[in-house]
Amino acid sequence: MFTGLSAFPLTPMNEHRINEREFASLVEFLAEAGVDSIGVLGSTGSYAYLSRDERARVALLSVENASSVPVVVGIGALRTRDVLANAESAQQAGASGVLLAPVSYQRLTDDEVFNLYATVCQSLSVPLCVYDNPGTTHFEFSDELHGRIAQLPQVRSIKIPPLKNDIEFAKERVARLRKLIPADVTIGISGDPAAAVGLDAGCDAWYSVIGGLYPKAALALTRAAQTGDAQQAKALSNALEPLWALYREYGGSLRVAATIAEVTGRVSQPCLPQPLKTLQGDERKRLAAVIEGLGLD
Amino acid sequence: MFTGLSAFPLTPMNEHRINEREFASLVEFLAEAGVDSIGVLGSTGSYAYLSRDERARVALLSVENASSVPVVVGIGALRTRDVLANAESAQQAGASGVLLAPVSYQRLTDDEVFNLYATVCQSLSVPLCVYDNPGTTHFEFSDELHGRIAQLPQVRSIKIPPLKNDIEFAKERVARLRKLIPADVTIGISGDPAAAVGLDAGCDAWYSVIGGLYPKAALALTRAAQTGDAQQAKALSNALEPLWALYREYGGSLRVAATIAEVTGRVSQPCLPQPLKTLQGDERKRLAAVIEGLGLD
Repeated sequence: MFTGLSAFPLTPMNEHRINEREFASLVEFLAEAGVDSIGVLGSTGSYAYLSRDERARVALLSVENASSVPVVVGIGALRTRDVLANAESAQQAGASGVLLAPVSYQRLTDDEVFNLYATVCQSLSVPLCVYDNPGTTHFEFSDELHGRIAQLPQVRSIKIPPLKNDIEFAKERVARLRKLIPADVTIGISGDPAAAVGLDAGCDAWYSVIGGLYPKAALALTRAAQTGDAQQAKALSNALEPLWALYREYGGSLRVAATIAEVTGRVSQPCLPQPLKTLQGDERKRLAAVIEGLGLD
Repeated sequence: MFTGLSAFPLTPMNEHRINEREFASLVEFLAEAGVDSIGVLGSTGSYAYLSRDERARVALLSVENASSVPVVVGIGALRTRDVLANAESAQQAGASGVLLAPVSYQRLTDDEVFNLYATVCQSLSVPLCVYDNPGTTHFEFSDELHGRIAQLPQVRSIKIPPLKNDIEFAKERVARLRKLIPADVTIGISGDPAAAVGLDAGCDAWYSVIGGLYPKAALALTRAAQTGDAQQAKALSNALEPLWALYREYGGSLRVAATIAEVTGRVSQPCLPQPLKTLQGDERKRLAAVIEGLGLD
């Protein structure tokens, strides 16, 4: 399950509720496109902004609308108590796996993070993907800590942060991590602009934001890389460079992906939880022009 | 209300519930000591780890046990919707003011933060203190943004992060901020080790962690500074240097304050929400020895 293209849909919402109809459509669209897994309630799915009840509901809707495609549910929270509750509701919903980031307010120690994973794993009957995302969690995993956590029997994948767009550097990074973890734990790249180089460097999966909006384009890139055609994967990534430029300009993928979903009519506006906002005015027009120029479907 | 010593108590809890009896005792002790205000559900009060219902309950308990001392309640949350709910419950509990930090998961823009404060202020009937704490929120206020937010009529104080322990630097920092904010908006120092220099540099308040455990010591320092005796304030701070060294060693004040509360029997162990842990083993013994050596009461 933690290989190939894992597509991360948005969770469209306003200040009052999740738009369940729109969310179900996003999931259904991904399942029909044939992605390898669907990662709901990731950072792209705004998991950190939702209540426990809302997250349980999103988990249920996902499984109901994903046909036979495995659903991976983000269960991260500041507090172990809430992580355990999210794990329980994800499992009850029928999730095939869970994704856990060490979300922090107070800076966490390595031992605290290890204990979090150990505690949660004890309560799990489905496999877990370690979500390493220092940009949002502000926790920096050491390789040694990754090695310790990856020994926990439920751990089957590590979602690593973006790699520098340099194949030698990326290969070295993946090889270093691979040496420390069991053979059945996959490594998945995140940060869409680094997907081609990450897969080429030996990552088994792409945890993809753009795959949650344009699964065909993301699948084409993934399949090219999986069949060893690194040149084609790179060309497909390069073709999306105007999109990667928007990610860089707006400090990440979320506001860009959410604005795309709004301007293409897949979700109602607003779709992000306040205080977060999608792009407006001239920025929005420019993004719309970029998307039209790319001609994705 | 946003002047003098504002003491920040812990919120003792285990994985199941807040220890209401112990929390009430902590608040009562501060009120009896004559602190100028009590800041509940600050970072020291682990606000970010509690549910909306638990926070409403803590606000109520605080006001009930604070006698006539003003209570300031932390209302920060990732989502504007939850901040508004926390503001409402704090006001209903009888809080004299609220404290709001721009908590983030996705990095916030200046406009998003301004809109958060503007939206919340519209719903407030009590004054607000802006909580600038980049160490936990990962949001860096620019001076220009502080200036804009401080124009909102409900804003009456800014809780600034620790200053470098250099009086000229600190004076320049406070003066620069003062020029940008209305005259009735106070500036309060946080980061206990910087309290003496902050007050000497012209801060009106000390938002104090140690004041939540040892209000007499914190009051002595505050009163010395308020009467212009900077030398005495500095001497009292220097006497607490072994404590400041522990803050530095353990990445901030929370784990140190919580461990002190446990070893001195004011709260049951554990008192922090998992995955956070207090100091254990040899570290705990060393801390206990430091506290005994300081002879605080």
